[in-house]
Amino acid sequence: MLNFTYNIPTKIIFGKDELGRLPKEILLHGNRVLFLYGKNSIKKTGLYDKVVSLLNDKGIFFKELSGVKPNPDISSVREGIKIIKENNLNFILAVGGGSTIDCAKAVSAGANYTGDPWDFLLGKAKVKNVLPIGSILTLAATGSEMNGGSVISNEKTQEKLAFGHPLLVPVFTFEDPTLTFSVSKYQTAAGATDIVSHLLEQYFSSHNDDGLPDRLTEAMMINVINYAKKAVLEPDNYEARANLMWTSSLALNNLVTYGKKHGDWASHGIEHEVSAIYDITHGAGLAILFPNVLKYYLNKDIAESLPLTKFLNLGKNVFGISNDDEKAAALKTIEKIRDFFDTLDMPSKLSDENVDDSKIDVMAKGAARKGTLGYYHMLEERDIFEILKKSV
Amino acid sequence: MLNFTYNIPTKIIFGKDELGRLPKEILLHGNRVLFLYGKNSIKKTGLYDKVVSLLNDKGIFFKELSGVKPNPDISSVREGIKIIKENNLNFILAVGGGSTIDCAKAVSAGANYTGDPWDFLLGKAKVKNVLPIGSILTLAATGSEMNGGSVISNEKTQEKLAFGHPLLVPVFTFEDPTLTFSVSKYQTAAGATDIVSHLLEQYFSSHNDDGLPDRLTEAMMINVINYAKKAVLEPDNYEARANLMWTSSLALNNLVTYGKKHGDWASHGIEHEVSAIYDITHGAGLAILFPNVLKYYLNKDIAESLPLTKFLNLGKNVFGISNDDEKAAALKTIEKIRDFFDTLDMPSKLSDENVDDSKIDVMAKGAARKGTLGYYHMLEERDIFEILKKSV
Repeated sequence: MLNFTYNIPTKIIFGKDELGRLPKEILLHGNRVLFLYGKNSIKKTGLYDKVVSLLNDKGIFFKELSGVKPNPDISSVREGIKIIKENNLNFILAVGGGSTIDCAKAVSAGANYTGDPWDFLLGKAKVKNVLPIGSILTLAATGSEMNGGSVISNEKTQEKLAFGHPLLVPVFTFEDPTLTFSVSKYQTAAGATDIVSHLLEQYFSSHNDDGLPDRLTEAMMINVINYAKKAVLEPDNYEARANLMWTSSLALNNLVTYGKKHGDWASHGIEHEVSAIYDITHGAGLAILFPNVLKYYLNKDIAESLPLTKFLNLGKNVFGISNDDEKAAALKTIEKIRDFFDTLDMPSKLSDENVDDSKIDVMAKGAARKGTLGYYHMLEERDIFEILKKSV
Repeated sequence: MLNFTYNIPTKIIFGKDELGRLPKEILLHGNRVLFLYGKNSIKKTGLYDKVVSLLNDKGIFFKELSGVKPNPDISSVREGIKIIKENNLNFILAVGGGSTIDCAKAVSAGANYTGDPWDFLLGKAKVKNVLPIGSILTLAATGSEMNGGSVISNEKTQEKLAFGHPLLVPVFTFEDPTLTFSVSKYQTAAGATDIVSHLLEQYFSSHNDDGLPDRLTEAMMINVINYAKKAVLEPDNYEARANLMWTSSLALNNLVTYGKKHGDWASHGIEHEVSAIYDITHGAGLAILFPNVLKYYLNKDIAESLPLTKFLNLGKNVFGISNDDEKAAALKTIEKIRDFFDTLDMPSKLSDENVDDSKIDVMAKGAARKGTLGYYHMLEERDIFEILKKSV
């Protein structure tokens, strides 16, 4: 177990009928609010009216920025910063899923920065002097509600990059499972896929067993598998929605990586290249790519030189697989992951999502722009090209 | 899943060779320190000298209080408060295991209180205006390093009572697994038993499956079982010590109870009565009592009216037990827990610890002083008497 400093400062207010506490939580940190949200779904569900009325009742000044896209674009970030500066705002309330919260983080980082906020994505600017962020979560998927990471797209340059800083961790998040009752079957399934992917990516940090963090990861994976299909079939099932929501936060708040080396984010890295060019849901992209990345790790050149401990523990502890032939057990484990995505009707090929092979060279090049990708095994551009080719 | 507010503010600095960060962490909160520790073991291991030298190097004023006992007595608490008031101290550094940290919490609560600190244990005084506490953990067992709970004994009245408050959660804790290399085989085993007991007590909160908190509890239990014997046999095994240490903290920082009703702390409650009168290690007492409490829950009057979901999930997910006969599977699960304690050479009868049946009526009466004990099933005084009788 490697040294680490545990520090998860987000206060999570979990459960239904707790939103009345919102003004009090905001006023602990600020009193002039940028209210950030995405599409009109929060207007349809009544959440928008509820937030506005809570803010108005306590006389909390706010300005709105709506229209944050599923892959939030740097243009929204710039717009948010402009509104903050013009109105002297001191708090950001993000209402939505991971995209809205990710956008809030980039706005927060740029609020007191004189240059262009894309600099943070390029690593040219240092995060400091941020505005505090609070969030109301409406989608169980990303984990952004409890960590300092953010992914922002740049439509003009067809780039999708990530940055992060501990200062950008939301100070509070309201998690009300009933707010996800209206999430579509497809988005529910994609969200569950995203959670499982985060868990797998942190799990495959090395070739050896990591003790407690691995056991916790397996526990969360079992829990998502137990409840995902239920949430798809019964959108109003509170227990299913609650379990997905809480797992999504714990799956990406560092809890399962403390003590481990950095995870293997190859699948996420490749998926970001796909969704930078094509309009594909993040979870759907992961469902296609992840099993193929894992299968690639098992090809003879790679797997024969590495112990298969991670595959074997995952298979045994999550899927009950026992097989004397280690390679067969590892392949069976990947099959089980694929089966899970299948039960959620997630796609298995890029062509299912209207992505053909015409740009896989561009995507492979993009994914490898900083050198290799992944950690369990380092993937070079040609490896990524192969994986994409097998995924079309 | 019930509503909850997640808020775990303790910063954990985990790993070897991190202690140099101590002065900086202290100075975030105070600069006049009460340095609290137990027996001379920290002098033998060199930890005492290291702490003193770190404090002196940065010119941090401190006063010492040593001799905090394994079941910390209210007399130590009074002494600590006296030193704080006489020297105008503003921070408490607890170096040791749960007893020392528990003592620090009572001192903290009483530091700005004009009455006697035993009032907090009796529920007569309200915790407010506390002093911040930091800790350096030297024993993997209690979880006190990451929560606001405290258990204090009163030798004069032969009482052992608990209290707690969120304000008493340590602001930081250093967890260096190498500091537990010198813990004896017996204390290592007792500590592991304590961790498993905490997990079981939170697990048996109800008769139904609780989803994520239950899966996380099972994961932690598997991890303790994987590493406890290893730590006993190889005291210098860093991975084993690290896994026990980190699990001890996560097992009792509320993570596995968020979303659940209060746990079933019957075994702890009964054990506190035993160790209030007899000099028995907490973990050893739990190893004796816990399986007997669970067996009592399975007796025909109780079990026939209740679903055995918890027993069955625990058996299946932690011990791999599958049996069509639910009662048999539940009994097998208890047997497996007992087997685990046996592998650690923990006692199975009170008589092994020189406790006879002469005072079990007093202990049963004491345990039931606030009415019933437990939650999975409510135990009355006569139930507790029966359990103690079967445990002698």
